[in-house]
Amino acid sequence: MALIVQKYGGTSVGTVERIEAVAQKVIRARQRGDKVVVVVSAMSGETNRLIALANSISEFPDPREMDVLLSTGEQVTIALLCIALHKQGCPACSYTGGQVRILTDNAHGKARILEIDGGSVNEDLAAGRVVVIAGFQGVDEGGNITTLGRGGSDTTAVAMAAALKADECQIFTDVDGVYTTDPRVEPKARKLDKITFEEMLEMASLGSKVLQIRSVEFAGKYNVPLRVLSSFEEGEGTLITFEEENMEEAKISGIAFSRDEAKLTILGVPDQPGVAYSIIGPVSGANIEVDMIVQNIAKDDTTDFTFTVHRNDYHKALELLKETAEVLGAREVIGTKNIVKLSLVGVGMRSHAGIASTMFETLAKEGINIQMISTSEIKISVVVDEKYLELGVRALHEAFGLAGELKE
Amino acid sequence: MALIVQKYGGTSVGTVERIEAVAQKVIRARQRGDKVVVVVSAMSGETNRLIALANSISEFPDPREMDVLLSTGEQVTIALLCIALHKQGCPACSYTGGQVRILTDNAHGKARILEIDGGSVNEDLAAGRVVVIAGFQGVDEGGNITTLGRGGSDTTAVAMAAALKADECQIFTDVDGVYTTDPRVEPKARKLDKITFEEMLEMASLGSKVLQIRSVEFAGKYNVPLRVLSSFEEGEGTLITFEEENMEEAKISGIAFSRDEAKLTILGVPDQPGVAYSIIGPVSGANIEVDMIVQNIAKDDTTDFTFTVHRNDYHKALELLKETAEVLGAREVIGTKNIVKLSLVGVGMRSHAGIASTMFETLAKEGINIQMISTSEIKISVVVDEKYLELGVRALHEAFGLAGELKE
Repeated sequence: MALIVQKYGGTSVGTVERIEAVAQKVIRARQRGDKVVVVVSAMSGETNRLIALANSISEFPDPREMDVLLSTGEQVTIALLCIALHKQGCPACSYTGGQVRILTDNAHGKARILEIDGGSVNEDLAAGRVVVIAGFQGVDEGGNITTLGRGGSDTTAVAMAAALKADECQIFTDVDGVYTTDPRVEPKARKLDKITFEEMLEMASLGSKVLQIRSVEFAGKYNVPLRVLSSFEEGEGTLITFEEENMEEAKISGIAFSRDEAKLTILGVPDQPGVAYSIIGPVSGANIEVDMIVQNIAKDDTTDFTFTVHRNDYHKALELLKETAEVLGAREVIGTKNIVKLSLVGVGMRSHAGIASTMFETLAKEGINIQMISTSEIKISVVVDEKYLELGVRALHEAFGLAGELKE
Repeated sequence: MALIVQKYGGTSVGTVERIEAVAQKVIRARQRGDKVVVVVSAMSGETNRLIALANSISEFPDPREMDVLLSTGEQVTIALLCIALHKQGCPACSYTGGQVRILTDNAHGKARILEIDGGSVNEDLAAGRVVVIAGFQGVDEGGNITTLGRGGSDTTAVAMAAALKADECQIFTDVDGVYTTDPRVEPKARKLDKITFEEMLEMASLGSKVLQIRSVEFAGKYNVPLRVLSSFEEGEGTLITFEEENMEEAKISGIAFSRDEAKLTILGVPDQPGVAYSIIGPVSGANIEVDMIVQNIAKDDTTDFTFTVHRNDYHKALELLKETAEVLGAREVIGTKNIVKLSLVGVGMRSHAGIASTMFETLAKEGINIQMISTSEIKISVVVDEKYLELGVRALHEAFGLAGELKE
C-alpha cells in the first residue's frame, strides 16, 4: 500500500463537472489500494475574480489582507471536492493550509514553507479517509494566513509529500508528461518515461512550462519522486527521478528552446580589469536578469562583449548599455530581438564527448549560423536567428535520435 | 473612550462601493474617539452562490464541508473591508472566526458559541487598529470550521461585545430602528428611541423582523446594550436596554402583527383529563409548532378546543386533527387560514390595569370581532379576520397614543 500525494491545478478543477471527474480519478487511485492525499488549486478564474475585487478598491492592497482574500479560492475547492467524493461513497476530509498546519514565514504573497505538522492528516489516512488539502496557502507563527505565490500549489503538494514521506507526488496538468521537445514544433517529439531532476530543472528554466521550477527544486532537495500526468487522459506520465543508472545510453533527454530572448553587444571596449562588471552591473542593478554572457578574445587592446536578456527588458537594457558605452569610451552598441535559444539537455552529456560537435555539425549542415554558445555540465545552449527555430529543433531532434512514434 | 462592536449585514456590504461606505462609517466612529470592532456578513448573493455550487454536486452535502465552503463568504468581506479601511488611512486587521478564536460546539450549520478567547483582538485595539471579524463562523475543539446558522453574524457581534465587555453593540440594518408598528401599515408609526429586551423579544417573535431572536436573547443574557441603526442613513436608531425606569408612562411600546397564522378548532370533544394532550400531541409530534391554544368551558360534558399554527403547516395539522377527532369521537373539525394575530407589547402593561379592556373596546368600536385571546405579562394577542389587519393596527396605534410625526 503506497501513500500518494496528487495535485490538481485550477484548470483541472475549473468547473463542478471537472471536480467530479477529479473525484473519480482519486477514487480509482484509492481502489488500487493506495492512501491518497489531494492538493487542489482555486477553480480557474476565481483568483483573478478576487484580485479584481481588491483592485477595484485599492491599487496597492495590503499583502496580509490579500492572502486572507485569495486563500478563500482553494478553500472553496477543497469543500466541493470532498462533497463530490462523499457523493461517490468515498470518505474524505478537507484541510485548509492553517488546519494542516503548514507553517510559513510571514512574507505575505510569497511565503516560504518552514515546517509541516500534518499530525491529524495521518489519523485521517489511517482511518481510510482521503485527505484534501488547500494548495498555495499556510499560516505564519502568529496564525496569520499566508500564500506561497505563483505555482504555490505544486510546492504545497511536494512539501506535503516530503512531510508525509509519500511514495510519490503526482502533479496533474493539461499535458500528459514531459516531452523530448515541444510537440507543436516537432510532431515526432516523444514523451519521456523518466527524466532526472537536474534535467527537469534545465528543461523548465528553458521554457518547457510543465512544472514550477521552485517545486522541482523542492522535490529534489527532499528526495520526493515526482510524476507529471494529464488530468484529462489516462497514462503513466513522466517520472522525475534521482536515478541516473539507465540513462547512460540516452545521452540527450530533450531539446528545449526559448523565444523570449534578446541579444545586446557592446563593441570596442577597452580590455582592462573590471570592464565586465562595469557593463553588467547597471543592468542587474535595474533588476534585469542576464542569461548568457560571452566575451571575445581581445584584439588591439579592445574587446567585444555580448549578453542576452528577456525580450521585455530589451529596450531598457539597450538604454543602460548606451550610457555605459559612453562612460567606457566603447565604439558601438548593437542589439537584436530576432533571436532564439536552443538547448540540448541531458545528464548523459557528462560522460560523453562529441555532443557539442554533433550539435554544431547538425546546425551547420542546415545552414544555421550560431551567434552565441554557452555550456554547462548537462546543457549546451546556442543562440540563433529566430527564423531557424523550427528547423533547428527538428534537425537536432533527428540527429540525437529522440524521435518516437508520430503523435496522433 | 468607548468600545463599540458594529455589525454590517450582507446588503450593507453587497458591493465594493457599499464596503467603502461601511469603511467611512467605521472611520467616523473611530474619529469620535471610540475603539471599533466590526463584524461583517458575506456579500449579499455570495452565500447563495456557494450553496448552489455545492447543490449542483450533491443534494445532501456534508455539513462539515458546507461550513468550510460557506465560511469563505465572510472571509472575502473582512479582507475587502480592511483593504478599504487601509486605503482611507485607517489601520485595520482582519480575523476569521478561527483566528479570533470563537470556540463553538461541533453542530455544523447551527453551531453554538461556547467561548471566545479574543486575546490578540485586544492587542490590536490597544494599538489603535480597527478589528474586522468574520461573522457567522467559529471553530470547534478540533479546529474544524463551524457556522452558526441563520442570523449568525448578529450572534457573533453580540458574543464579541459580551466577551470584550463592549459599551455597545450596534447592528446596522436596512431599517433605521424599531417602530411602534410597521410603517407600511400605519404611516404614523413612530421610531422608538428605547425598548426593553423583553419587549424586543415579543416584537421580534411576532413578526417585526429587525433582529434575529437568538442574538437578542444572547444580548439580554450577557447584558450587552444593543442598538439597531440604518446602514444607509444617519441617526441614533433604537437602543435595546435593560432599564425599565422611564417606561412607566409609556404603557405600550408597540403593536406587532403576524399574517402567517392559521386556526384550527375541534368541536364537541368529551371533557375529560388528557384530552388536551391527545389533541396537541400528534401535532407537536409532526414537528408543527403550536402558538395560541384556547379551550372553552365545557357544556354538556363536551368542550371546544382551538389552536393556531403557521400557515404553511395548516393542511398537515388539519389532517392530523381529523384523525384525532375520529379517535376521540369529536363532533367536527373546522379551520381557516384567513386570520391574523395582533399584539400589544409593553413592559408598562405589568403595572397598569385596563390595557386589555381598552384594546377590546377599541376593536369593538371598529366592528372587529375577536376570535381568540391570549395574554402574557407584557403582551396581549388577539386573533381577528385578516381583512381587519390594517384597520385594527391603526385603531390600536391611535388608542394607545403611539403616533409620532408623519414619516415622509
